Amino acid sequence: MEQKVMDQELQTALEQFRVLDEKITHFSSIIGLTDWDSKVMAPKKGRNVFAKAIGTLRTEVFKLSVSEEMGNLLEKLSAVNDLDAVTKAKVREYREYYQKSKRIPADLFQEYSILTGQANDAWEEARANNDFAHYLPYLEKIVQFRRKFADIYGYEEHPYDALLDEFEPGLTVKRLDPLFAKLRESSVKLLERIQKHGKPTAVEVFDQSFDIETQKAFNRYILPIIGFDMDAGRLDETVHPFAQTVTIGDVRLTTRYLEKNVRSALFGTIHEAGHGIYEQHVNPDYEESVLQSGASFGIHESQSRFLENMVGRSREFWYYFYPQLQAHFPAQLENVSVDEFYRAVNTVQPSFIRVEADELMYNLHIMLRYEIEKDLIAGVIEAKDLPAIWNQKMQDYLGVTPSTDTEGVLQDVHWSFGGIGYFPSYSLGNLYAAQILRTIQKDLPDFYNLIENGRFDLLQEWLKENIHQYGKLYTPNELIVKVTGEELNADYLVQYLEQKYCEVYGL
Amino acid sequence: MEQKVMDQELQTALEQFRVLDEKITHFSSIIGLTDWDSKVMAPKKGRNVFAKAIGTLRTEVFKLSVSEEMGNLLEKLSAVNDLDAVTKAKVREYREYYQKSKRIPADLFQEYSILTGQANDAWEEARANNDFAHYLPYLEKIVQFRRKFADIYGYEEHPYDALLDEFEPGLTVKRLDPLFAKLRESSVKLLERIQKHGKPTAVEVFDQSFDIETQKAFNRYILPIIGFDMDAGRLDETVHPFAQTVTIGDVRLTTRYLEKNVRSALFGTIHEAGHGIYEQHVNPDYEESVLQSGASFGIHESQSRFLENMVGRSREFWYYFYPQLQAHFPAQLENVSVDEFYRAVNTVQPSFIRVEADELMYNLHIMLRYEIEKDLIAGVIEAKDLPAIWNQKMQDYLGVTPSTDTEGVLQDVHWSFGGIGYFPSYSLGNLYAAQILRTIQKDLPDFYNLIENGRFDLLQEWLKENIHQYGKLYTPNELIVKVTGEELNADYLVQYLEQKYCEVYGL
Repeated sequence: MEQKVMDQELQTALEQFRVLDEKITHFSSIIGLTDWDSKVMAPKKGRNVFAKAIGTLRTEVFKLSVSEEMGNLLEKLSAVNDLDAVTKAKVREYREYYQKSKRIPADLFQEYSILTGQANDAWEEARANNDFAHYLPYLEKIVQFRRKFADIYGYEEHPYDALLDEFEPGLTVKRLDPLFAKLRESSVKLLERIQKHGKPTAVEVFDQSFDIETQKAFNRYILPIIGFDMDAGRLDETVHPFAQTVTIGDVRLTTRYLEKNVRSALFGTIHEAGHGIYEQHVNPDYEESVLQSGASFGIHESQSRFLENMVGRSREFWYYFYPQLQAHFPAQLENVSVDEFYRAVNTVQPSFIRVEADELMYNLHIMLRYEIEKDLIAGVIEAKDLPAIWNQKMQDYLGVTPSTDTEGVLQDVHWSFGGIGYFPSYSLGNLYAAQILRTIQKDLPDFYNLIENGRFDLLQEWLKENIHQYGKLYTPNELIVKVTGEELNADYLVQYLEQKYCEVYGL
Repeated sequence: MEQKVMDQELQTALEQFRVLDEKITHFSSIIGLTDWDSKVMAPKKGRNVFAKAIGTLRTEVFKLSVSEEMGNLLEKLSAVNDLDAVTKAKVREYREYYQKSKRIPADLFQEYSILTGQANDAWEEARANNDFAHYLPYLEKIVQFRRKFADIYGYEEHPYDALLDEFEPGLTVKRLDPLFAKLRESSVKLLERIQKHGKPTAVEVFDQSFDIETQKAFNRYILPIIGFDMDAGRLDETVHPFAQTVTIGDVRLTTRYLEKNVRSALFGTIHEAGHGIYEQHVNPDYEESVLQSGASFGIHESQSRFLENMVGRSREFWYYFYPQLQAHFPAQLENVSVDEFYRAVNTVQPSFIRVEADELMYNLHIMLRYEIEKDLIAGVIEAKDLPAIWNQKMQDYLGVTPSTDTEGVLQDVHWSFGGIGYFPSYSLGNLYAAQILRTIQKDLPDFYNLIENGRFDLLQEWLKENIHQYGKLYTPNELIVKVTGEELNADYLVQYLEQKYCEVYGL
């Protein structure tokens, strides 16, 4: 009899939890859409007020997530031993957020939500006009908020740990520093060798104009082939490319077309497609629940960086696609062989813009941001000092100094939405991706052969089966161990870069 | 002392009401955006789940609007004698909704919200494939819901009154029948005279192809000139044209381009611009409150029909714009004079599609729908009988029979979103518009001269000053009396149509 009462209570709690999860997820889907809209569609005069409306909805989600009802349900369900794996994962996700956020007052949260909505516009304008001062007041407030959140969340060693954990559960400065140190050391050495002994690439092929309409046509041509379902998504244009999930059946990519830089949209689109395909492949059973999205920002970046680099910058990828690219741009490419093009695509060249960096330089861009963010959150530096610090670190890490803030500290959208703590995910993604590549090549020994033959379906099937379908069922650490048999380590990426660039540069 | 306590209590209630109003309005803005998105942007695989997400948010708005908190605040504030006019209007708006809707269970409302979201897709598909059967199950459910709502809302004489009141507060079958009878009688007579004695127009000018890209260019050219602020709105494409407000600074229009029918997008866009300009002109002080939108559906239609017909189908409008239209379409229009074009634009011709009907036939299209809706809600007819009834009534009212349901009962979006009760607003809009025109011509005796000289700014200034700025501050009846000095009557429209078509047809 008592067992029956318990069961009944548990059933009620499970149903209440399901309803609450669904409501929060519905609202989150809508927030995703409004975010996308405000960056891609919204006319300028409406943005300010609409940012407040989004802030109100974000606050509602926040309130639901830290509500007494949520707290009680999490407590009840956490105490159940034989909870099914799916519910257990959902409880884990909500509990993490609940424990971090329950001490943040709703008013403070709403103020922060509205601020980040408005800061995006300020950033866009500042970037367009090379006017850091216009963005600074927003950035200063965002930094203050993030410092405050770090304190409220709590941390053991470094305040920045509290923010890292938001994007990659469990990640700390202590764990990241040695990974980055190893990567930096090997990258700098490799760069030196390339600069001294590398056989130059025909990078000047990119110093030409590529008609934007034709670029669009080529992007639309490759997207479905590499696995993005156009009936379950869109491709639009923005200043800063991104992927935004509304639902599993509605994943939206954006890209940026530059006539003088064909690589920008090309690899930007492939990168965002990597994010998008991941979300399109999540098990439909997880739709309308917190599990409907990718495991973490780091794992997400592993999928985008994998598709962009391990696949999209491979020789075999271009063996398959280059004839079509030539057909789109005959004047620009008729005298460039596919091997020349492949090497040109993999030119190592210290430059200003992260999203257009080659695979080797990319991680140095990230480390620079990581160092700055750590110091910002620790209060060692202030927002107003960022332009000067940015340029100094660019010189230190990459040996170049941007001539404008637009090419420097203003290039990234992340801080405007409060994403301090996000950047390390990119390099983490590169690390995960190299480790995953090693595993794929065990399962599919003819991996690069498949690519050369355009069998992206088989590649995507593997990714769906082994990674994508799980959504947030596993933590990032559980997932990487499940997929590759071991925890994350930097060796695979170091080896991959070494091998790739020795081949490209004939070292 | 007691007065002070009262004041304090009132202040608290006012602040609580402001916060609740703002929250509801923020959510409504977001719902507006998501509605627009689902019709204009959303990829097809995501629509079904997203409709559920929108349903959840609509239900939240519903719950807030009929909440105990709302009920208490309305009671408190209604009892205050010297409430300021703005708050009084807000209380009126919420009270009307509260009293009608508080007896609808939230579950029922959510079910209905999701249904109407999904029905739109079903309607679109049915319309594309001329497949009424595909739409029927949705329509049947919607009819059942609307009948149930009519019962719950309550009514004195006809169940349809309960639904009319949703779109035009205070409107009843009893009030509408004589207005429509008068209009019908005079329209049918006028049509007869035109068909017997009218000098034919050169309507064949429209039997040509008009390049769609050029149509788009022309639409984008005229929109800002006639007063639509493109920095506070957008123009996109849909199957069924509409205007959607997100905020006062973000009003979105859609239109439909047909190569074989240049009038469709042209007058459709002007029509929607009439709605859009109205919303863009609302007093910014009312933004983020329930007053931020137009007074009623009827008044709204008066603004769109006024711009489309009294302005956009006037001879002076084309004196101003025709040279540009000719420049856009030289091959099609070089041998057509502006006077011929003006007469062609005003050709009276019974046809199938409401949105493309001339001013005279238009009201007959509405009366047909009105009769059908009345009978549907009264349970006299059922959804499954609609194709046959539709075609019969088309024959009775307009003397033509559609050859497909796509050209017949499937042509309108309204029932799919539950808008049974909406259609009469269009003819009401025509009636209001003619009455308003008479007043404008008193204030601006050179009204049509201004149009001929492209002084749409002065016309819009008058509309903004006298109508638009007020948003929902006044009820439709208060507003029409304030603007024109008398209650709505059908004489002005009857006279306007008589005068216009006698001139066009040389009667």
